[in-house]
Amino acid sequence: MRIMGIDPGLQRTGYGVIEQLGSRDCRLVEGGVIETDSTWLLPRRLAVIFEGIVQVITELNPDIAVVEKLYAKYRHPRTAILMGHARGVVYLAAARNSVEVAAYPASQIKKSLTGNGRATKAQVAAMVTQLLGLPEPPAPADVTDALALAICHARPTLDGSGRRELPEAIRQAMARDR
Amino acid sequence: MRIMGIDPGLQRTGYGVIEQLGSRDCRLVEGGVIETDSTWLLPRRLAVIFEGIVQVITELNPDIAVVEKLYAKYRHPRTAILMGHARGVVYLAAARNSVEVAAYPASQIKKSLTGNGRATKAQVAAMVTQLLGLPEPPAPADVTDALALAICHARPTLDGSGRRELPEAIRQAMARDR
Repeated sequence: MRIMGIDPGLQRTGYGVIEQLGSRDCRLVEGGVIETDSTWLLPRRLAVIFEGIVQVITELNPDIAVVEKLYAKYRHPRTAILMGHARGVVYLAAARNSVEVAAYPASQIKKSLTGNGRATKAQVAAMVTQLLGLPEPPAPADVTDALALAICHARPTLDGSGRRELPEAIRQAMARDR
Repeated sequence: MRIMGIDPGLQRTGYGVIEQLGSRDCRLVEGGVIETDSTWLLPRRLAVIFEGIVQVITELNPDIAVVEKLYAKYRHPRTAILMGHARGVVYLAAARNSVEVAAYPASQIKKSLTGNGRATKAQVAAMVTQLLGLPEPPAPADVTDALALAICHARPTLDGSGRRELPEAIRQAMARDR
C-alpha cells in the first residue's frame, strides 16, 4: 500500500509518499515540494502544481492521496482561498489519475502521530522523523506536513481512550518532547 | 474578439461567451452552466467543472477568459475556499488551452455595466439583457453573472468622471431602474 500525503499551497505544495509495511511500520518512498514563483500569473502557477502532482502520481503510483480537511475558520481567508485553488488542482490531478483522496482534520493528524490533538509542529515533525527512521526531520516543513498526512492514514486508529501503544523509541521521543 | 466570462462555483459554474463587434456593441454567442451534484465526491465535481470548461473553450475558442477578482473579505470563508477549488480548475482549464485570464473586482463590473459600482443584481441583469438585446435576463443567474464579466471586459473603460455615454435604450432601462 502506497500512500501519498499532499500539503497544497500556491507557493509550495509539499508531497510525501510512504509505503505501509504491515500494520505498524512504514517507510519513506519519496518526498519533495513543487514550488512556484509569486511573479508568475495564477494560471501558470496552478498548471505547474497540477503537472507536478500528476508527475509524482505517474512515477510513484500511490494507491491513495491524503490531504488535510478544511477548517471551519481561517485567520487569513484570502490566503485560504488561494490555497483552495491549489487544493482544487491537486484533487483534479488525483481524479484524472483515478487516485482516491482522503481528508483528515488537523487535530486527528496530530493525535494520530503524537497522541495529542494539539501537538506542536515540532512534536509532529519529531514523530515523522522517528516513525520513518530518518536521521533528521525532512525539509522544508511542507514535506514533513505531507508525510504526517500519509502516516496518519497508514496507522491504525486510536483506541477509545485516545491512547495506543507506541514503539519504545517513539515513547522516548515523546517523553523528551513534553 | 471572443470573450468568455466564467463565474466559478462548486455547485454551479456559469459561463457566457460574447463576441465584441466594434467598440460598443457585442452579441451573445453562448451561455450555460456546469452543474455538479453535492452527493458527488470533490474530485469528481472538480473534474466535471474542469472538463466542462475545457469543452466550452475547445468548441467556442474564446480569446480571453474573465473572472471576478477575489474580495478581501468573505462572509462564509469555508464556502469561499470551496469556490476557490472550482476557480482553481477553471484557471487550469484556461492555462492548458492557452487562454489568458483577466480578473475584475465586483465593483468594477457593476460600474462598467450600470455606471454604479454598488448596483443591485437586478440592475446588472437588466443591463446584460439590454446590451445583448435579449428578450429576458439569461437564467440561471450564474449565466448572467458570467456574461456581465465578459461585457465588462469588452466595454471601453469609464472616463475620469466615472460616467460614459450609454445607448439610448440602456439609458432608459437604467432610468426605469432607479
